[in-house]
Amino acid sequence: MSLIVMKFGGSSVGTPERMQRVAKRILERQQEGNDIVVVVSAMGDTTDDLIDQSKGLNPNPPTREMDMLMTVGEQISIALLSMTIHQLGGKAMSFTGWQAGMKTDEVHGKAKITDIEPSRIFKALEAGNVAVVAGFQGMSEEGEITTLGRGGSDTTAVALAAAVKADVCEIYTDVDGVYSTDPRVVKNARKLNEISYDEMLELANLGAAVLHPRAVEYAKHYNVKLVVRSSFTQNEGTSVKEDAVMEQGVVVRGIAFDKNVARISIMGVEDVPGVLANVFGALAKNGIDVDIIVQSGVQDGKADFSFTVSGDDREKAIEVIEGVRSLVPYRETTSESSLVKVSIVGAGMVSNPGVAAQMFSAISSLGVSIKMVSTSEIKCSCVIAADQLNEVVRSLHTAYGLDTTEQVFVGGPSERR
Amino acid sequence: MSLIVMKFGGSSVGTPERMQRVAKRILERQQEGNDIVVVVSAMGDTTDDLIDQSKGLNPNPPTREMDMLMTVGEQISIALLSMTIHQLGGKAMSFTGWQAGMKTDEVHGKAKITDIEPSRIFKALEAGNVAVVAGFQGMSEEGEITTLGRGGSDTTAVALAAAVKADVCEIYTDVDGVYSTDPRVVKNARKLNEISYDEMLELANLGAAVLHPRAVEYAKHYNVKLVVRSSFTQNEGTSVKEDAVMEQGVVVRGIAFDKNVARISIMGVEDVPGVLANVFGALAKNGIDVDIIVQSGVQDGKADFSFTVSGDDREKAIEVIEGVRSLVPYRETTSESSLVKVSIVGAGMVSNPGVAAQMFSAISSLGVSIKMVSTSEIKCSCVIAADQLNEVVRSLHTAYGLDTTEQVFVGGPSERR
Repeated sequence: MSLIVMKFGGSSVGTPERMQRVAKRILERQQEGNDIVVVVSAMGDTTDDLIDQSKGLNPNPPTREMDMLMTVGEQISIALLSMTIHQLGGKAMSFTGWQAGMKTDEVHGKAKITDIEPSRIFKALEAGNVAVVAGFQGMSEEGEITTLGRGGSDTTAVALAAAVKADVCEIYTDVDGVYSTDPRVVKNARKLNEISYDEMLELANLGAAVLHPRAVEYAKHYNVKLVVRSSFTQNEGTSVKEDAVMEQGVVVRGIAFDKNVARISIMGVEDVPGVLANVFGALAKNGIDVDIIVQSGVQDGKADFSFTVSGDDREKAIEVIEGVRSLVPYRETTSESSLVKVSIVGAGMVSNPGVAAQMFSAISSLGVSIKMVSTSEIKCSCVIAADQLNEVVRSLHTAYGLDTTEQVFVGGPSERR
Repeated sequence: MSLIVMKFGGSSVGTPERMQRVAKRILERQQEGNDIVVVVSAMGDTTDDLIDQSKGLNPNPPTREMDMLMTVGEQISIALLSMTIHQLGGKAMSFTGWQAGMKTDEVHGKAKITDIEPSRIFKALEAGNVAVVAGFQGMSEEGEITTLGRGGSDTTAVALAAAVKADVCEIYTDVDGVYSTDPRVVKNARKLNEISYDEMLELANLGAAVLHPRAVEYAKHYNVKLVVRSSFTQNEGTSVKEDAVMEQGVVVRGIAFDKNVARISIMGVEDVPGVLANVFGALAKNGIDVDIIVQSGVQDGKADFSFTVSGDDREKAIEVIEGVRSLVPYRETTSESSLVKVSIVGAGMVSNPGVAAQMFSAISSLGVSIKMVSTSEIKCSCVIAADQLNEVVRSLHTAYGLDTTEQVFVGGPSERR
């Protein structure tokens, strides 16, 4: 008998028909002999409706009261899903975040889980119930209702799976799993059977929207096996786990991209101590996320460096840099928008030194110029012009053998079911 | 400085405009130098919408899950009202039932308050906040979310007023206060300035819908001064308190009626011990509320008795009685529907023996026959034919001096503001 956490997003329970399908699915899984804990998000448009109502009364409401309002969405979902399970002849008990023992700090709107005390969940399971838990919410030590911020329900599911020592945490979503790249760009994009936490983390951070990075970090930290799968089909999903199997000779798992990148360069910067700290400290203080940073060598005591930000932040970033000119004397700034970042991700890259070079040559052979490069142990990112993105992604997908049907991944346990 | 509990019903906060008006009203009361605790119900149609959603998924859902669902309505109200108060420059903190320390038994759907631990309310008040509390809900010792059933928000307000030792509990509603009778029947019906708990209890039980009987009982038990007033006007309301002042020589406070009454008579019942217990025990077991019971004297070892039930319960009641015929042998049953009950209520009646006689003669002088009578220390009820109701109420209203403008009640504290 296994203990399984099943997480359903808002679109999976957005209509009565979908709610019923989810309830059926849960009971099937239970009838296979498993104990089931369900984590569910707010239904379809509930959250947006609540936000609309609040904006009409206070465009800038206290975050404490927003949390009080927003947590209602999941509470509706858990009650209705439990009722639906009963209607189908099953037994279920719903639990709000605080009832499920989800303890958080008190940062309203983006609280962090500090502890989980799941005794009521176990009690419900022992009595033969499906335990249906509200995602996205918790309670602070002072008894304040909090929300976990973006990706919160994924995080609830993974954290709860760790706390109850679940055998697997299944994330049900509206796609079949994690793909080798975006199927809207590459027709031959293939669903992956397995992927490692680190690879998933890179893909999640790079814009593959199926799993929130925070949830993946949590899963890696507590070694929770994840399966991403569709709530609309019975297809096998993608297993995310430490020791994801990869075929011999294949080093790249997938190709991710970020479509809205701007480059900013600061030229002729006086090479005095604390220069980088001053520049990037000021950007961080202004809420601007910096991604790739490249510094070229120092010449005549002066350096050039470049970095990327989201295209939306370009103008603000330049203003911030002008604001610190007295601390960081420099000659001039230049910038460029309409750029994209393409990344290859694969745990095998660390032991295959030629992988990055293969990427550069594939891109060059298309006549596309690479503007910036950044590498880590398991990924290599290149910044290029936006209008050449699709062509480059398709070419890389082929170059790394990702669209050959021969390349079938070796299956893990999830394939034997 | 006073501590005031203000309770607003669902229709008072049903639109953004009304929500803003309520928030303004609360801040006005605070700016007069008072500490304010607000109790609020679910907005307008929220409750009905939630019920509709649930019925589509499970026509007969577990009461535990219904409580989980229904409590969402008040949680939305408290969050939005607090935001609105902030938008108007005030400070407010919202509290769910469990956060406000409302402890109940575990009878889902109609829980009873067992204790209140309002420490968080006091803390919020000390910091200058309006404390906004969700009505209708509480938490059991096991941490289950419960609802108080019908009239629940009134009860929350009164119980909270008792727990925090409020100077007054103001019930805001869509009428100006408690009237001497239904203004739709008697044009000259007048708003009462004061009324005693017992009188209010009789009026509330008899169908004056402004205050739930349970809340009045609570107020009487804990001696909480109530004021019923309109949320739409600044008019003085009606004070409900122990020592309500009444003018010299006036003994009847108001006239109430119940429009849907049926009489059932059981004739020729064998006078054996336990007869009444068997009949009324069986009716109670079948969920039939019995109101007036009249037994005539025993003759030849046989008795006749009559009782009233809601018109909707007539047929079922007769069935139940036939079901116990083996235990309670009787000759026959007769019944009559399309009846009404008219009652005069007044604390002065106990020391004025002629009051009931005056009622009988006023009704008789209209050529109306009285079918049943029931009296208590502070009321006298007569059952008559439904088609003569309005005429009788108007006549009684005049006979007891309730529609003369001269009869101005002596004012209490609420009138001096």
